[in-house]
Amino acid sequence: MAEPIFRLLVINAREDETALHASQRDFEHALATAEHPTPRIEARFLVHGDPTLPEALAWANVLLGWRLPRPLIAAHGQALRLIQLINAGIDPLLPLDWLPPGAALCNASGIHGPRLQEWATMVLLMLQARMPFFATAQRAHLWSRRTTPCIAGKTVLVFGTGGLGSAVARAGRGLGLTTIGVKRTPCPVADFDEIISRDDTMRALGRADFVMLTLPLTPATRGLADAAFFAAMREGAGFANFGRGALVDQPALCDALDREHLGGAILDVTTPEPLPPDSPLWSTKNLVITPHVSCDDPTTYIADSMRLLLENLRRLASGRKLKNQIDKLKGY
Amino acid sequence: MAEPIFRLLVINAREDETALHASQRDFEHALATAEHPTPRIEARFLVHGDPTLPEALAWANVLLGWRLPRPLIAAHGQALRLIQLINAGIDPLLPLDWLPPGAALCNASGIHGPRLQEWATMVLLMLQARMPFFATAQRAHLWSRRTTPCIAGKTVLVFGTGGLGSAVARAGRGLGLTTIGVKRTPCPVADFDEIISRDDTMRALGRADFVMLTLPLTPATRGLADAAFFAAMREGAGFANFGRGALVDQPALCDALDREHLGGAILDVTTPEPLPPDSPLWSTKNLVITPHVSCDDPTTYIADSMRLLLENLRRLASGRKLKNQIDKLKGY
Repeated sequence: MAEPIFRLLVINAREDETALHASQRDFEHALATAEHPTPRIEARFLVHGDPTLPEALAWANVLLGWRLPRPLIAAHGQALRLIQLINAGIDPLLPLDWLPPGAALCNASGIHGPRLQEWATMVLLMLQARMPFFATAQRAHLWSRRTTPCIAGKTVLVFGTGGLGSAVARAGRGLGLTTIGVKRTPCPVADFDEIISRDDTMRALGRADFVMLTLPLTPATRGLADAAFFAAMREGAGFANFGRGALVDQPALCDALDREHLGGAILDVTTPEPLPPDSPLWSTKNLVITPHVSCDDPTTYIADSMRLLLENLRRLASGRKLKNQIDKLKGY
Repeated sequence: MAEPIFRLLVINAREDETALHASQRDFEHALATAEHPTPRIEARFLVHGDPTLPEALAWANVLLGWRLPRPLIAAHGQALRLIQLINAGIDPLLPLDWLPPGAALCNASGIHGPRLQEWATMVLLMLQARMPFFATAQRAHLWSRRTTPCIAGKTVLVFGTGGLGSAVARAGRGLGLTTIGVKRTPCPVADFDEIISRDDTMRALGRADFVMLTLPLTPATRGLADAAFFAAMREGAGFANFGRGALVDQPALCDALDREHLGGAILDVTTPEPLPPDSPLWSTKNLVITPHVSCDDPTTYIADSMRLLLENLRRLASGRKLKNQIDKLKGY
């Protein structure tokens, strides 16, 4: 019997987070339903903190996981050729100085699209309907009527044009909105009516009824949505963040909401997470908070991650370019 | 110059409710943009409480309004041939003993469709995403993650298959749901996959992931959604009411939510309205309240009402059947 080509170590969180737990059963299901022949894989499943992790890391040449044990990987993971994340944002892993030289790091960008598209449809309709205003009125036990027209014909400005940004754009198009994307190196992108560069951001903010962030967190994007950003937005416009909490200067957002310069905001990400009970965000006027759940479909998340892993193993085995490989210099 | 055929009295609310104020300008715009020749109309515009109302009512043969001054109409409106409402629900006008014998009463059913369709899309997505749960968690300053799959493939049960019910069904279909309608006299209705009679209600409740009310309030529908109704719903299902608050036994709903038998509810109508600050509904677990705004598009509402009025005047002038005429016996 030939030696397995890939020795896969799956590291799961200890907490019972069903949506992000990749089990042996999930792995076997992925193998059984794979559309293409898959290289031979021997797999082991451990949780964070398991005392056998160093030995398993020395054994493995492929790692699948989330919230990686970076010092252990740096110390024992010299045989690793692929680290496949089951999430998209790699900001908690930066800088990448722990990454073994022979290992490619790939994220799960793209698997969040369908759930986020539907979530963004909901968020656009909620901002249009002034649901953050009604949520605030409900907290104060106030019946305060505001009627609103249908949403078609409005404009949404999306920061980021990758998997998440495109999902938001498709949501906007589905509702009859004009979609504008902000991209570092502008070029036409499907689902966007118009693409602008970051240099044109401030002008574009004044054209949008809704502004949505889907960017990764990097030194260049941290604090992007600050007081000047919100001041450049239209009076009464809506704001949402699906990227990372630290893209937003939270006190500046609260100020723009308190002064009613913005009509409402919906945040799925905050700093820190979990948001502590004493955070002023919870009771900020016209602000709705959801706990970082907009992109995760528990019925498809792990299956999609596994499918992506198998695809990258096929590519690795045949020497092709990997999907979603992180650029170590750019950090995304 | 020939005598005007119709003498129209428009009675507006005194409060500044822009969405429901029908001005002379709105009327002239409707005349100028009418698609068909319109009978000659002389129009007067008054507000509730105007001392000249009795005289104006005696003068008019057509009335357009909302929250009608019933005793004044009974006393002075003997010349009225058409009373065109700019809203749909006539329950505050029942019984119709004040209606002059020669006057037809017509409501504005149908003009709420586009706004409600979009609103119901939002409500379905919010129930699927567990937004009432997150709103409750936000009130308690709690970061409590629950991930949810996409909505396609679920089932919505809609009580009422008229203008509002069909709008909810279209919302459901647009999201890939199976749509079941409850209708007093079952027959196929566009936008519904299946129509059932009220006798089959209890069985159908157990098949639905979402249950939505769009019924008028009549003696037969009052208190329809009671403890047995909620008990027959699926564990974790979502509920919404777009009809009238008194369709729902509110303490029974609160109980079903408190016990977490239902996953969440969104009410756009309550009893009473406005809901007083000391109502327990405001802080009921997993319940979102909006202040009776789901069906009103302020940019189209009055124009659509005026268009309906002109259509009914054309029909009246040529002796044709009126649109949306209320059956005095059925009360809807």
